[in-house]
Amino acid sequence: MPYIKLDSKSFSHNLHTIVSQTNSTINNIAIVLKDNAYGHGLIEMATLANKYGITSCFVKSEVEAHSIKHLFKHITILYPNFDNATEDNMYISITSLETLKKTQNNKTIELKIDSGMHRNGISKDEIKEAIKIIKSKNLRLFGVFTHNGFADEIGSEFYGQFHYFTEIKKEIIKLCKDNQIQIPRFHSLASSGAFRGASLNSSLPQELQDSIFRIGIALYGYCTSEIYNIKLKPVASLWAKKISSKTLKKGSTIGYGGVSKLDRDLTISTYDIGYGDGLFRIKKDINLTTKEGFSIFQVASMDCISIESTLDEVCIFDDATTWTSAFSTIPYEILSHLHANIPKKIV
Amino acid sequence: MPYIKLDSKSFSHNLHTIVSQTNSTINNIAIVLKDNAYGHGLIEMATLANKYGITSCFVKSEVEAHSIKHLFKHITILYPNFDNATEDNMYISITSLETLKKTQNNKTIELKIDSGMHRNGISKDEIKEAIKIIKSKNLRLFGVFTHNGFADEIGSEFYGQFHYFTEIKKEIIKLCKDNQIQIPRFHSLASSGAFRGASLNSSLPQELQDSIFRIGIALYGYCTSEIYNIKLKPVASLWAKKISSKTLKKGSTIGYGGVSKLDRDLTISTYDIGYGDGLFRIKKDINLTTKEGFSIFQVASMDCISIESTLDEVCIFDDATTWTSAFSTIPYEILSHLHANIPKKIV
Repeated sequence: MPYIKLDSKSFSHNLHTIVSQTNSTINNIAIVLKDNAYGHGLIEMATLANKYGITSCFVKSEVEAHSIKHLFKHITILYPNFDNATEDNMYISITSLETLKKTQNNKTIELKIDSGMHRNGISKDEIKEAIKIIKSKNLRLFGVFTHNGFADEIGSEFYGQFHYFTEIKKEIIKLCKDNQIQIPRFHSLASSGAFRGASLNSSLPQELQDSIFRIGIALYGYCTSEIYNIKLKPVASLWAKKISSKTLKKGSTIGYGGVSKLDRDLTISTYDIGYGDGLFRIKKDINLTTKEGFSIFQVASMDCISIESTLDEVCIFDDATTWTSAFSTIPYEILSHLHANIPKKIV
Repeated sequence: MPYIKLDSKSFSHNLHTIVSQTNSTINNIAIVLKDNAYGHGLIEMATLANKYGITSCFVKSEVEAHSIKHLFKHITILYPNFDNATEDNMYISITSLETLKKTQNNKTIELKIDSGMHRNGISKDEIKEAIKIIKSKNLRLFGVFTHNGFADEIGSEFYGQFHYFTEIKKEIIKLCKDNQIQIPRFHSLASSGAFRGASLNSSLPQELQDSIFRIGIALYGYCTSEIYNIKLKPVASLWAKKISSKTLKKGSTIGYGGVSKLDRDLTISTYDIGYGDGLFRIKKDINLTTKEGFSIFQVASMDCISIESTLDEVCIFDDATTWTSAFSTIPYEILSHLHANIPKKIV
């Protein structure tokens, strides 16, 4: 079987780089573990995060939350199914007044604000009503947050969203004080946002500051914007094992439709990963090599690929950006598509 | 949560169309269930196949085999890990002399032949040696097979591979007779291959005929070549549920980087599927609509997409070919990337 190697030193490097770049402490860093930790393996990444002292995380569902409940003090469920049980260290993200009204009394929640992405979240003019419902249902308001979706773009939108959320915080604090509700934690900045907004955040009066940064992709080792010159190290490398080798004559073709044709006699091997494992499909005209520099022949099959190698195992990539270029996408997609049943090894 | 609806009537339609097109019976049809049944759900598709009388199947691994062992008479494991246990109705695919030599005595195997794709499989000049090892290890040779990878291409390669394998069969039969080994079943034709080669196959003397067709994508409802005018019905449709709705003013932007901008006042909703579920990522310039005709806004997030709809649930697709065109790929990839944890509903 193929497997994913998770490099704990790279994870530690990323964590300390993020702490340093954002002029914060590990207590300010929450890890985003949703979608099987962006394909890296939920339990494995949760274990690493716990080992290095991270106490807050964000997951997608109650199912994800339950599988790592022993590893974190604070677990926020971003896309809850409201009929599933939660435990004391699990907080439900609430993204609309409608779901807030349906929430069971006495639950702990984090309230999502729409500060300009117009996906999910309560709008500014719904906040007063939201606090009223929270009070009447005796909900514990653990956090109020938003997602600044403009950190990777040059331009002022990032700052617009930042200041908009600061105004929201002021209103929340006032409403909480008026209603004897404990003031919640605030957070709005993900990886690029934290790099861009950390100093702006610390220039705010203490009570208006975001207390955590919600870090996903940067902890996994990717900086997705050229705005920031930050050296991170990819945590995951993808490895495949040899199925068999074959010595072929010049002119032989390989795979479906015989797309690849050998220009000389060559010994090649098949390896046990394909697009059925969630890897992107190497089609005609996609030229990729393994980490070792061996050519991968077009076209990939569902369960195997042919490579100009005879090694027992090869590294398909140790940096997903080689694949993001080939497929015009972002590392998030290459990584999160990898299927959960690929075994993980922490090194 | 999003979910996949599996239409049993469409499956039955496909099965009967394949039987009719190949002038065979259900006994000649084996289903390919590898890679979580091409993303459709292994157990659900195995249950459907069993219900409609299919008795042979092909899976990827021992893990897949064990989860459906009660549903089939014959289960072939295409990519075995040789250290895992098998049961009497599970047969290991052997793709090289090297692995044949390592196989435990008395196991039941199917021998894979390389007839021209040059991926995995024993070559013609290794067959004598293979039969010798089979005899010495007292292996049960249940099948001998190949994969004709040229069925979707216009040209003669398909026939070249077909006749090459027929010659192999002759040799196998002779060697089996000489060594008092029971003559195995033969198979070489997958979906397109069966449509193209069924009549050719039945023109062979009985003992040289393939006794099963290994059908994957056609049973799931797709005919991947325009060579064949066969009307199949996609079995899977992908559905997402509404998270929340939002009424926005003309000029509002949506999602990361504000890529989509509204040209009028509009009520839109977010739905709970994203590229973190294995769906392909709708990036800038990818224009797709739901089955109902609602526009999906660029760009998709990892866990949600915004759609010009207020329905409680929408059908993201009921035919993956709308997505294969947008992403220049094949239905196999769109479907097999969908994550196994998406719930399935058979209707």
